[in-house]
Amino acid sequence: MDKINLAEKFELVQEHWHPHIIAELDSYDIKVAKIAGEFVWHKHDDADEMFLIIKGEMNMEMRERTVSLSAGEMIVVPKGVEHRPTAQDECEIILFERRGLVNTGDAEKSELTRDQLERI
Amino acid sequence: MDKINLAEKFELVQEHWHPHIIAELDSYDIKVAKIAGEFVWHKHDDADEMFLIIKGEMNMEMRERTVSLSAGEMIVVPKGVEHRPTAQDECEIILFERRGLVNTGDAEKSELTRDQLERI
Repeated sequence: MDKINLAEKFELVQEHWHPHIIAELDSYDIKVAKIAGEFVWHKHDDADEMFLIIKGEMNMEMRERTVSLSAGEMIVVPKGVEHRPTAQDECEIILFERRGLVNTGDAEKSELTRDQLERI
Repeated sequence: MDKINLAEKFELVQEHWHPHIIAELDSYDIKVAKIAGEFVWHKHDDADEMFLIIKGEMNMEMRERTVSLSAGEMIVVPKGVEHRPTAQDECEIILFERRGLVNTGDAEKSELTRDQLERI
Protein backbone atom coordinates (compact mmCIF):
# COMPACT_ATOMS: atom_id res chain seq x y z
CA MET A 1 0.00 0.00 0.00
CA ASP A 2 2.97 2.27 -0.49
CA LYS A 3 3.00 4.62 -3.40
CA ILE A 4 5.08 3.68 -6.42
CA ASN A 5 7.06 6.39 -8.18
CA LEU A 6 7.58 5.47 -11.82
CA ALA A 7 10.71 7.61 -12.34
CA GLU A 8 12.37 5.94 -9.34
CA LYS A 9 11.53 2.51 -10.71
CA PHE A 10 12.85 3.30 -14.20
CA GLU A 11 16.14 4.42 -12.61
CA LEU A 12 16.59 0.88 -11.29
CA VAL A 13 16.30 -0.66 -14.75
CA GLN A 14 19.35 -0.70 -16.98
CA GLU A 15 19.00 -3.49 -19.50
CA HIS A 16 16.72 -3.12 -22.49
CA TRP A 17 13.84 -5.58 -23.02
CA HIS A 18 14.06 -6.73 -19.41
CA PRO A 19 10.72 -6.04 -17.70
CA HIS A 20 10.62 -5.67 -13.91
CA ILE A 21 7.48 -6.06 -11.81
CA ILE A 22 6.55 -2.96 -9.82
CA ALA A 23 3.08 -3.92 -8.57
CA GLU A 24 0.56 -6.73 -8.48
CA LEU A 25 -3.18 -6.46 -9.03
CA ASP A 26 -5.22 -9.64 -8.51
CA SER A 27 -3.51 -12.17 -10.81
CA TYR A 28 -1.95 -9.47 -13.00
CA ASP A 29 1.41 -7.74 -12.92
CA ILE A 30 2.29 -4.13 -13.61
CA LYS A 31 5.80 -3.89 -15.04
CA VAL A 32 8.26 -1.26 -16.22
CA ALA A 33 10.65 -1.80 -19.12
CA LYS A 34 13.17 0.16 -21.10
CA ILE A 35 13.28 -0.81 -24.75
CA ALA A 36 15.52 0.11 -27.69
CA GLY A 37 16.06 -1.53 -31.04
CA GLU A 38 13.97 -4.45 -32.28
CA PHE A 39 12.25 -7.18 -30.33
CA VAL A 40 11.18 -10.52 -31.84
CA TRP A 41 7.91 -11.24 -33.61
CA HIS A 42 5.63 -13.15 -31.24
CA LYS A 43 2.10 -13.50 -29.94
CA HIS A 44 0.39 -14.50 -26.72
CA ASP A 45 -2.35 -16.99 -27.51
CA ASP A 46 -4.36 -16.46 -24.34
CA ALA A 47 -3.50 -13.03 -22.98
CA ASP A 48 -4.01 -9.42 -24.02
CA GLU A 49 -1.04 -7.15 -23.39
CA MET A 50 -1.05 -3.42 -22.60
CA PHE A 51 1.78 -1.03 -23.47
CA LEU A 52 1.68 2.50 -22.00
CA ILE A 53 4.46 4.82 -23.11
CA ILE A 54 5.91 6.98 -20.33
CA LYS A 55 8.93 8.50 -22.11
CA GLY A 56 10.14 8.42 -25.69
CA GLU A 57 8.62 6.76 -28.74
CA MET A 58 8.07 3.23 -29.95
CA ASN A 59 6.45 1.37 -32.80
CA MET A 60 4.14 -1.58 -32.43
CA GLU A 61 4.61 -3.54 -35.63
CA MET A 62 1.80 -5.92 -36.51
CA ARG A 63 1.52 -8.00 -39.67
CA GLU A 64 -1.03 -5.66 -41.25
CA ARG A 65 0.26 -2.32 -40.03
CA THR A 66 2.48 -0.45 -37.60
CA VAL A 67 1.23 1.85 -34.86
CA SER A 68 3.57 4.64 -33.70
CA LEU A 69 3.28 5.54 -30.03
CA SER A 70 4.61 8.46 -27.97
CA ALA A 71 4.60 9.33 -24.28
CA GLY A 72 1.01 9.53 -23.01
CA GLU A 73 -0.26 6.95 -25.49
CA MET A 74 -1.10 3.28 -25.07
CA ILE A 75 -2.16 0.23 -27.01
CA VAL A 76 -3.65 -3.12 -26.08
CA VAL A 77 -2.40 -5.93 -28.31
CA PRO A 78 -5.17 -8.54 -28.29
CA LYS A 79 -4.45 -12.19 -27.62
CA GLY A 80 -3.36 -14.08 -30.70
CA VAL A 81 -2.13 -11.04 -32.63
CA GLU A 82 1.47 -11.22 -33.83
CA HIS A 83 3.44 -8.14 -32.89
CA ARG A 84 6.95 -6.80 -32.64
CA PRO A 85 7.78 -3.75 -30.53
CA THR A 86 10.63 -1.59 -31.80
CA ALA A 87 12.16 1.71 -30.71
CA GLN A 88 14.73 3.81 -32.51
CA ASP A 89 15.91 5.37 -29.25
CA GLU A 90 15.41 4.29 -25.67
CA CYS A 91 11.77 4.29 -24.65
CA GLU A 92 10.24 3.77 -21.20
CA ILE A 93 7.02 1.77 -21.02
CA ILE A 94 4.60 0.28 -18.55
CA LEU A 95 3.24 -3.18 -19.24
CA PHE A 96 0.09 -4.65 -17.80
CA GLU A 97 -0.45 -8.33 -18.29
CA ARG A 98 -1.49 -11.58 -16.69
CA ARG A 99 0.97 -13.02 -14.21
CA GLY A 100 3.32 -15.54 -15.75
CA LEU A 101 3.15 -14.18 -19.27
CA VAL A 102 6.53 -14.65 -20.96
CA ASN A 103 7.71 -11.64 -22.93
CA THR A 104 8.62 -13.54 -26.08
CA GLY A 105 5.28 -15.40 -26.18
CA ASP A 106 5.26 -18.21 -28.70
CA ALA A 107 8.63 -17.25 -30.24
CA GLU A 108 11.55 -19.60 -29.77
CA LYS A 109 13.28 -19.00 -26.45
CA SER A 110 16.21 -16.62 -26.96
CA GLU A 111 18.50 -14.25 -25.12
CA LEU A 112 15.55 -11.83 -25.10
CA THR A 113 13.31 -14.24 -23.18
CA ARG A 114 12.63 -13.27 -19.56
CA ASP A 115 10.62 -15.90 -17.77
CA GLN A 116 11.78 -15.05 -14.25
CA LEU A 117 11.08 -11.42 -13.48
CA GLU A 118 12.39 -9.45 -10.53
CA ARG A 119 10.15 -7.33 -8.33
CA ILE A 120 11.62 -3.88 -7.77
CA MET B 1 -5.63 -2.19 -31.99
CA ASP B 2 -5.65 1.55 -32.41
CA LYS B 3 -3.52 3.66 -30.19
CA ILE B 4 -5.16 5.47 -27.30
CA ASN B 5 -4.09 9.00 -26.51
CA LEU B 6 -4.69 9.75 -22.84
CA ALA B 7 -4.92 13.55 -23.24
CA GLU B 8 -7.60 13.13 -25.92
CA LYS B 9 -9.57 10.81 -23.65
CA PHE B 10 -9.38 13.16 -20.66
CA GLU B 11 -10.74 15.96 -22.84
CA LEU B 12 -13.92 13.91 -23.30
CA VAL B 13 -14.51 13.64 -19.56
CA GLN B 14 -16.18 16.53 -17.75
CA GLU B 15 -17.81 15.25 -14.61
CA HIS B 16 -15.75 14.44 -11.54
CA TRP B 17 -15.81 10.90 -10.11
CA HIS B 18 -17.26 9.51 -13.32
CA PRO B 19 -14.86 6.90 -14.75
CA HIS B 20 -14.95 6.12 -18.46
CA ILE B 21 -13.57 2.94 -20.01
CA ILE B 22 -10.82 3.55 -22.58
CA ALA B 23 -9.56 -0.01 -23.13
CA GLU B 24 -10.19 -3.62 -22.22
CA LEU B 25 -7.59 -6.23 -21.34
CA ASP B 26 -8.83 -9.78 -20.79
CA SER B 27 -11.56 -9.36 -18.16
CA TYR B 28 -10.18 -6.05 -16.90
CA ASP B 29 -10.95 -2.46 -17.80
CA ILE B 30 -8.63 0.50 -18.13
CA LYS B 31 -10.44 3.71 -17.23
CA VAL B 32 -9.81 7.44 -17.03
CA ALA B 33 -11.35 9.68 -14.40
CA LYS B 34 -11.16 13.26 -13.26
CA ILE B 35 -11.54 13.67 -9.54
CA ALA B 36 -11.88 16.65 -7.21
CA GLY B 37 -13.07 16.92 -3.63
CA GLU B 38 -13.89 13.92 -1.48
CA PHE B 39 -15.17 10.52 -2.48
CA VAL B 40 -16.91 8.12 -0.07
CA TRP B 41 -15.23 5.59 2.18
CA HIS B 42 -15.55 2.13 0.65
CA LYS B 43 -13.79 -1.13 -0.11
CA HIS B 44 -13.88 -3.82 -2.75
CA ASP B 45 -14.02 -7.20 -1.06
CA ASP B 46 -12.75 -9.21 -3.99
CA ALA B 47 -10.78 -6.88 -6.27
CA ASP B 48 -7.55 -4.91 -6.08
CA GLU B 49 -7.71 -1.44 -7.60
CA MET B 50 -4.92 0.53 -9.26
CA PHE B 51 -4.73 4.33 -9.35
CA LEU B 52 -2.10 5.95 -11.61
CA ILE B 53 -1.90 9.73 -11.44
CA ILE B 54 -1.47 11.44 -14.81
CA LYS B 55 -1.96 15.08 -13.84
CA GLY B 56 -2.34 16.86 -10.50
CA GLU B 57 -2.30 15.46 -7.00
CA MET B 58 -4.55 13.27 -4.91
CA ASN B 59 -4.64 11.62 -1.51
CA MET B 60 -5.54 8.03 -0.85
CA GLU B 61 -6.95 8.02 2.64
CA MET B 62 -6.95 4.67 4.39
CA ARG B 63 -8.01 4.02 7.98
CA GLU B 64 -4.44 3.80 9.24
CA ARG B 65 -2.79 6.43 7.08
CA THR B 66 -3.01 8.66 4.03
CA VAL B 67 -0.78 8.36 0.96
CA SER B 68 -0.22 11.52 -1.11
CA LEU B 69 0.22 10.92 -4.83
CA SER B 70 1.40 13.16 -7.67
CA ALA B 71 1.64 12.76 -11.45
CA GLY B 72 3.88 9.80 -12.27
CA GLU B 73 2.97 7.91 -9.11
CA MET B 74 0.61 5.02 -8.52
CA ILE B 75 -0.86 2.88 -5.78
CA VAL B 76 -2.66 -0.46 -5.68
CA VAL B 77 -5.34 -0.58 -3.00
CA PRO B 78 -5.63 -4.25 -2.05
CA LYS B 79 -8.99 -5.99 -1.89
CA GLY B 80 -10.76 -5.51 1.40
CA VAL B 81 -8.95 -2.30 2.37
CA GLU B 82 -11.18 0.67 3.15
CA HIS B 83 -10.13 3.75 1.27
CA ARG B 84 -11.31 7.21 0.28
CA PRO B 85 -9.70 9.11 -2.60
CA THR B 86 -9.65 12.89 -2.24
CA ALA B 87 -8.17 15.72 -4.29
CA GLN B 88 -7.93 19.39 -3.37
CA ASP B 89 -7.86 20.43 -7.04
CA GLU B 90 -8.82 18.52 -10.15
CA CYS B 91 -6.67 15.46 -10.71
CA GLU B 92 -6.55 13.12 -13.72
CA ILE B 93 -6.10 9.43 -13.01
CA ILE B 94 -6.06 6.07 -14.74
CA LEU B 95 -7.81 3.17 -13.07
CA PHE B 96 -7.16 -0.45 -13.72
CA GLU B 97 -9.60 -2.92 -12.29
CA ARG B 98 -11.66 -6.02 -12.90
CA ARG B 99 -14.60 -5.56 -15.23
CA GLY B 100 -17.82 -4.86 -13.40
CA LEU B 101 -16.26 -3.32 -10.32
CA VAL B 102 -18.51 -0.57 -8.99
CA ASN B 103 -16.69 2.59 -7.97
CA THR B 104 -18.34 2.96 -4.58
CA GLY B 105 -17.70 -0.69 -3.65
CA ASP B 106 -19.55 -1.73 -0.51
CA ALA B 107 -20.72 1.81 0.33
CA GLU B 108 -24.41 2.60 0.12
CA LYS B 109 -25.42 3.47 -3.43
CA SER B 110 -25.36 7.25 -3.88
CA GLU B 111 -25.15 9.96 -6.50
CA LEU B 112 -21.45 9.08 -6.75
CA THR B 113 -22.16 5.47 -7.75
CA ARG B 114 -21.42 4.64 -11.38
CA ASP B 115 -22.42 1.11 -12.24
CA GLN B 116 -22.91 1.64 -15.97
CA LEU B 117 -19.75 3.03 -17.53
CA GLU B 118 -19.40 4.47 -20.99
CA ARG B 119 -16.62 3.42 -23.35
CA ILE B 120 -14.94 6.45 -24.91
